[in-house]
Amino acid sequence: MTQRIEIVRKILDSNQRIAASNRALLDENNIYGINIMASPGSGKTSFIMETLQRLPPRVHVGVIEGDTAPVTIDADKINALGMPAVQINTGGECHLDAVMVELALQKLDLKLLNLVLIENVGNLICPASFDLGTTANIVIASIPEGDDKPYKYPNIYRGLDVLIINKIDLLPYVDFRMDYFTKGIQMLNPDIKIFPVSCKTGGGFERWIDWLSSNIPTKDLPIDQ
Amino acid sequence: MTQRIEIVRKILDSNQRIAASNRALLDENNIYGINIMASPGSGKTSFIMETLQRLPPRVHVGVIEGDTAPVTIDADKINALGMPAVQINTGGECHLDAVMVELALQKLDLKLLNLVLIENVGNLICPASFDLGTTANIVIASIPEGDDKPYKYPNIYRGLDVLIINKIDLLPYVDFRMDYFTKGIQMLNPDIKIFPVSCKTGGGFERWIDWLSSNIPTKDLPIDQ
Repeated sequence: MTQRIEIVRKILDSNQRIAASNRALLDENNIYGINIMASPGSGKTSFIMETLQRLPPRVHVGVIEGDTAPVTIDADKINALGMPAVQINTGGECHLDAVMVELALQKLDLKLLNLVLIENVGNLICPASFDLGTTANIVIASIPEGDDKPYKYPNIYRGLDVLIINKIDLLPYVDFRMDYFTKGIQMLNPDIKIFPVSCKTGGGFERWIDWLSSNIPTKDLPIDQ
Repeated sequence: MTQRIEIVRKILDSNQRIAASNRALLDENNIYGINIMASPGSGKTSFIMETLQRLPPRVHVGVIEGDTAPVTIDADKINALGMPAVQINTGGECHLDAVMVELALQKLDLKLLNLVLIENVGNLICPASFDLGTTANIVIASIPEGDDKPYKYPNIYRGLDVLIINKIDLLPYVDFRMDYFTKGIQMLNPDIKIFPVSCKTGGGFERWIDWLSSNIPTKDLPIDQ
């Protein structure tokens, strides 16, 4: 058992080192990187697609799609929008780690980008332990998942920069106490930014896009010239 | 890396041995045991509560509640119905394993039960690797999670006995192709039983309860006399 714990510690230490190097690489290239975590089916891919279509022209995005199975359903959707998407197939693993992201970043032309969106594997537990080296960590919650999630999965909701609350169009049809939910989030993250949105109706996206745009570094890109 | 793989193999082998012993214990006691797996927020606890309230009086149930955090939200709900519930706090771990279930079974009076429901941790990936020794494995999917989940999380949908499709009351408000979803499930499990239900309206529960009751062993219990 001690041997197992020792190995887990080594894995996390080594992840932390590579995460720091990913963070330095993004910084050097003036890129804002976002780790998007969520439960399966909370609408991560739909959220990324809505965001891509609403960003101002000065923003140039690369997307990294993490999947536990060798399917390209999500990456195909992003490619169909004409955006560069790199897929990471974790081979059954339940989370992305910094090494996987390091390899994926090598496949993107970082000189041409100022935003990288990373869709983590759908999982509210394991991704919380692995820093990817991004600038910001986001969780997408969704209304039908229920209002008790911050209390039941506190680790993933801790240390977040932004919380997206998706599927607000379903509020009339689901029992969801918004005040109970946000109280649970704010207990863990007093300074968190919260954006309620609906990928189906587009509601709430203006505020999110304004906030996101204001955080993306200005960068002179060949494509703008 | 080889050392890590070797340890993972040993963990899984040892899990398998204890799962076999759990299975023998349930069999000896004429108990039907169900491992209920699902994504966070698919309605596992609501489904268990609806089931408990609809089972015929000859069925005597014990519930094991798996949680990744030290909260008793779910176990409290079951106890409020007057049913014995044992909570397993996994201490951050992302799945139940056979050892945790072995310890929980020791806290239930198995002589008085003929059904044990085990609510696994909300996670569509890790629980797939750990046999708990139950008689049946169930996944609860839910409509708002989307119809692509069997394609994206095949391991958890493989080797299932029963699939519950919850939240069918939300079908009018969500894009969900039932035929695409069930095709993905049946590709992995040609003989699976599928029960669409709504915990909110009670729709679909009659068929599920009929099927479940027909599988629960008859047992002369002191409480019946």
